[in-house]
Order: sequence, then C-alpha cells, then structure tokens
Amino acid sequence: MGQTIFVPKEVDATEARVAASPDTVKRLSGLGFSVVVEKDAGAGSRIPDADFVAAGGSIGKSSDAGKADVVLKVRRPTEAELKSYKSGAVVLASMDPYGNDAAVAAMAKAGISAFAMEFMPRITRAQSMDVLSSQANLAGYQAVIDAAAEYDRALPMMMTAAGTVPAAKIFVMGVGVAGLQAIATARRLGGVVTATDVRPAAKEQVASLGAKFLAVEDDEFKAAETAGGYAKEMSKEYQAKQAALTADHIAKQDIVITTALIPGRPAPKLISAAMVASMKPGSVIVDLAVERGGNVEGSVPGKVVTTANGVKIIGHLNVPGRVAASSSLLYAKNLFAFLETMIDKEKKAVVVNPDDELVKATLLTHGGKVVHSNFAKAEAAGA
Amino acid sequence: MGQTIFVPKEVDATEARVAASPDTVKRLSGLGFSVVVEKDAGAGSRIPDADFVAAGGSIGKSSDAGKADVVLKVRRPTEAELKSYKSGAVVLASMDPYGNDAAVAAMAKAGISAFAMEFMPRITRAQSMDVLSSQANLAGYQAVIDAAAEYDRALPMMMTAAGTVPAAKIFVMGVGVAGLQAIATARRLGGVVTATDVRPAAKEQVASLGAKFLAVEDDEFKAAETAGGYAKEMSKEYQAKQAALTADHIAKQDIVITTALIPGRPAPKLISAAMVASMKPGSVIVDLAVERGGNVEGSVPGKVVTTANGVKIIGHLNVPGRVAASSSLLYAKNLFAFLETMIDKEKKAVVVNPDDELVKATLLTHGGKVVHSNFAKAEAAGA
Repeated sequence: MGQTIFVPKEVDATEARVAASPDTVKRLSGLGFSVVVEKDAGAGSRIPDADFVAAGGSIGKSSDAGKADVVLKVRRPTEAELKSYKSGAVVLASMDPYGNDAAVAAMAKAGISAFAMEFMPRITRAQSMDVLSSQANLAGYQAVIDAAAEYDRALPMMMTAAGTVPAAKIFVMGVGVAGLQAIATARRLGGVVTATDVRPAAKEQVASLGAKFLAVEDDEFKAAETAGGYAKEMSKEYQAKQAALTADHIAKQDIVITTALIPGRPAPKLISAAMVASMKPGSVIVDLAVERGGNVEGSVPGKVVTTANGVKIIGHLNVPGRVAASSSLLYAKNLFAFLETMIDKEKKAVVVNPDDELVKATLLTHGGKVVHSNFAKAEAAGA
Repeated sequence: MGQTIFVPKEVDATEARVAASPDTVKRLSGLGFSVVVEKDAGAGSRIPDADFVAAGGSIGKSSDAGKADVVLKVRRPTEAELKSYKSGAVVLASMDPYGNDAAVAAMAKAGISAFAMEFMPRITRAQSMDVLSSQANLAGYQAVIDAAAEYDRALPMMMTAAGTVPAAKIFVMGVGVAGLQAIATARRLGGVVTATDVRPAAKEQVASLGAKFLAVEDDEFKAAETAGGYAKEMSKEYQAKQAALTADHIAKQDIVITTALIPGRPAPKLISAAMVASMKPGSVIVDLAVERGGNVEGSVPGKVVTTANGVKIIGHLNVPGRVAASSSLLYAKNLFAFLETMIDKEKKAVVVNPDDELVKATLLTHGGKVVHSNFAKAEAAGA
C-alpha cells in the first residue's frame, strides 16, 4: 500500500462542501493510496459514508489526520487541525492567504507543504484544477436562483388571459466565470439581461449568451474592444461617461448581480447607496463579492438586508456551498487533477517538485518556510 | 359620480396580495366610479398608495368600507369586516366556501351579494376572469423556484473542465395550469422533466412543453387518450399498474412537484411516506396542495420539513402570494373583467342579474339568503 490520504469533515459549521467525492476516492485508491475519509465528511454534500467505502476508502475520525501524508481540504486548516498533522504533510485547500499572514506563517511552522488551490494558473493544462472557476460557475447559477426566490414577481414574461406579466430586467456586473453563468441562468429563466465589465472584449461573450452589453460605445471603447483581453485602463473621461450610464441603468433594473473581485485586494465598490436608493421597491441585488468587502454599499455578509426604499440586498456567504452537492464534486475533481500531477506512480507517493510551474504558482509553505513570493511578509510575521 | 368601490388592505397578515391595481383603478374611475383604496393596501405587492392616486383613486381607511357599494377583496371577509359593510354591498373575493358553511351563512346574514371568484366557469368568455388559472400559473412557476432554492445541486446540466454536473430529474404530478407552468419553468432551468396526470389526454400538452409523460401506455390508455378531455375513470388493473410505475419513478427523482386538487374535496394523496422514504437524501418535494390537506404524506402547511432520510418537503402556504407583485396584477384584472360585465354604464352602478350565467355560477349569497345550489346546507346552518 502507498501513502495515506486523509479527507476531513470541514470544521467550519457553515461549510457544507467536502474535498473528495466517491469518484476521486476511487481513482486515488486505484493509484495505490490508502484513503481515509472522516465520518460524515460528505453529509453536507449528500455523499453518505457508505459511498466512500464502496469507492475503496475507509471511514475514520479527525485524529486520523496524524497519519496522513496528504490532506485534502476545502478551507485552510485551523490551528487545531495543524497540530494534528504530521510535519511534511502535503495539504491542498482554498487557503485564502491574503491578509492572513499569521495563518500562513503557522502553516510554515507546522512544517506542511500547503498548496493554495486558488493560485492555480489560468492556463489550458490547469483548467481542470481551477477551483475558482468551478466554484464561481455554481455561484453565478445560485445567485440567480437566490434572486428569483427573493423577488416578488415572476422572471419570465407570461402572456395570460388576464394580461401580460413583463419579464424581469436583470443586470450582471462583472463578466467573469460567475457573471457568465449568471447571465446564462437569468436568460434561461426568461429575464431581459444586460451586463457590463471593465474589459470591452467581454462584449462578445455577453452577446453570445443572448444578453446586451452596457457600455458607452465611443471610439475609445471600439479601439479597446478590438485590442481584446486585458486592455489598458480606459481614460478618466470614458470612466465618467460609463459611470453615468451605469447609474442611470441600475435605477431601471429589477435584479442586479455583482461579481467583481480583484485578487488580493478588497472588492471594488460598484453600487453606491445613492444607486440603491434609486431602485424601485421590491428590486433585488445579489452581492457575490460580499465576503471580500462587497461590491454594493450596504450589503452585509450572511444577511438579506431590506433598505428603507424596499430594495433587498442579498449577501449570502459561501454561495457555492449553497449547492454543495454539485460544488463538492467539481472541487474534489479539481484537487484530484492537481494531486495526480504530483504522484510518483511507482512509489505510490506524492512528490513535491518545487520547479514545476503549477507547484511554483500554488505552494505557500514548504520545509518549514513560507516559500510563495507574494508572502515574504508572512514569513517575517512568523519568525 | 357613480357608486363607490372600496379596496381594503387584506386583514390576514400573511396575504401580500391586493384586489386592485393602478390599471384597474384607472379603468373603474374612467367608468365613473369613486374608488377608495385603503392606505398601504398595495404595500405587499409593491404598489405605493401614490400609484393608486395617480390612477384616479383616493386613499382611505378601513372604515370607508361602510360607504362602499362594491368591495374588491382577495380573501373572504372576516366577521369584523362584514359588520363594516352596508347591506346590499357587492363583494368579490376568493371565498373558499367549501367546509366553511358558517362563514357563508354569515355573509348571507350581513345582506351582501358575495361572489366566489373561484367558481367562475371555465368557458372562453370568462377566461379573463379566472382567478384559479391566473394564480395557479404563478404558483407553478414559484414551486420550481422554491424547489431550486432548497435543492443542493444545480438544475441544468453543466459541462465544465472539472467534469459534468448532471441535470436534475424533475417530476410534476398533476398537469393543470400550475403543473404546466411548473413543467415549463423546470424545462427553462434545464431539468429533465417528466409529468403525469389522471387524464391521458394531458400527454400531448406535456410533450408540447418538451417533457415526457409518465404512463403505462397499454391499449386501455391509448383508447382513453384518443377519447380526450375528462375521460372515464381507468380500470382498477390499470390504476394498479400506473401506481407501481409511479412509485418506481419517484424513487429516482431529484425534485417532485405535486399540484392535484379536487374542487370541494380534500386533495388526493399521491405520495405515501414509503415513496418519500424511497427517495435519495437531498431530494426535494413541493406540495402545492398542502392547504387542501396535501398530496404528500408528511407535508406540513407553512413549513419545510426534512425527513429522516434527508428529503425536504416544502409546504409553503399561499404560493401565489410569494410572487405578490405579479399575482396581484393578474388577480385585480380578473376581478375587473368580471365586475365590468355587471356594470350599468348609464347609471354608473353595478347591477346583479341573477339570471346571468356567470352570476349564477359564482353568486353565493344575495338578498339575505344563501343562493348557490352547492350551499343549501350553509343556509340551514345560518337559520
């Protein structure tokens, strides 16, 4: 038998996801690993212990972490968890390291090789390992479902004998993976969908989903659109024109979904209190960036706020976790795909090669040190 | 000025709907009526008082009911409301009279002409007055939204770099107005949808929405299907075969939505506790008949129940009221369309003609008596 892999039940009670699925346990067992899954680890994702056993795993308890060479997790290990790991263990998780220098230093001190899955490069080879994409996709879907559940009207146009119910106007701000899935889902439900993004090149993607891109389409925009990709920042004049257009547009929307994140920095404020106040009573805003400071003035993490003018601002935490039975399957697959690249199939062991491009991008701590270039300060904090 | 029409704020705190809209107030004002809307009557449906005023109405208080010749309501008037009405007032509402003989007798005693909007005949002329259809349509939509919000997976199939999320399997039992809209909405969201109904003729409607009809398609079924409409009851043998097929099918579903109602009788039990127990953890059932006794064993009015095997049974009350801003507009239009047929445009007054086909079908009490043939016993109870 090869090395031991441990999959804990997440200690955060609000985290329903799990870092392995019967499918990934089966593959890891097939590669010669001994996989121990903590009792009830899959309960929140609708995976019974029996399914892990049927896939070749065994059911254990949290202290079994101590014999594991590899730990697969959703969230960064807590201090208590770190104490239970053996030095040299490889730990894969969404490490959320920015602004958490002390926690990063603690992982170094514990001697683990901690991989931050969210740093996976967005290159073709690593697509199947991209936890940000897999989870953002489901968050974008769920944002529309959450909005529809709070909204006091139907989303699709309905032509009935007693008159026509108009389609809801839905505006998606930020057209990354989450934004694109939100657009697609809102379109499925019959909404009239518009979207915007700082990248003029996003216009084509938005149009391909049947939605309309909101932008001041002057010469500057057209030049930037053709340049494609991450174009240079637009002029101050353009930004002012675009802001005025957006503010005017928001006042007419029924549902607005914001998805703008900047890695390592607070989320940009896209919607001011004045814009919220301009909306009709009964309108709904979903702030998918609420955990990072929020795109919307007045959004509160974990709450649905109703403003004085009757607008609901939804600030659910961990939105992918709201569809945990789907998100866990994809997350588990992401981790497996990456782990597989580090497996020495002869030795049935995980070998960390610091020169590998994916390892370089994601390895936070190794051999007792903080090794990721973005976290030199964390090393100092831990010293 | 003609007669006075009063639109109260509903006294039931869980009722967000209102029986008039700015559109219907405008039309009634245009016909010469004085329309008084109680303060905040539209608040739950996102209609500010100012919108009623702009449409030609005025804002009043509950005691203004006393000067009204016509009262437009969502729910049957309470004892207290009846006391405030003048004798001879015409009252249009969803009267929910079955099993409520004492309440029907009280309306007779109060001397009002009480119309039960839910008794509107399902004929072409009265389609625009059909409150059951307009509200069931929205209930069918909302049932799918509520199911999706509780469900822990995404509904559509999603093909991602980390693998495929399978589409949810959704089964709709009862293919009336609510069932058809539930099918349409579940299809919009990408579900794999099946449906069943006691009427074999429903097969074609189900197919036209891109869903599959579940039935034992033997010779008896095929004969009944061709006969169309409300065919005669199927044989005991057929029913047994169909029940076995349905039970087997339910065990494999992710979401089941039940919509079966029988006018004036308790809802039929479609799903037994054993069938619920056969479903996978995380599955969701929506019982749209919960207010009438329920189609599902174990559903509880007003609650989301999680069973021992992890199935969620949703029993929300007043599902159309969950999308009140849409349902009120249609409900108001239904009432207006019926009221208009009783308006004498010269006198600017409502005149009840007991010989009119629509009046005959809907008039419960008139001239101090219970006049509807289905409620002779209610007359006795009130004597």
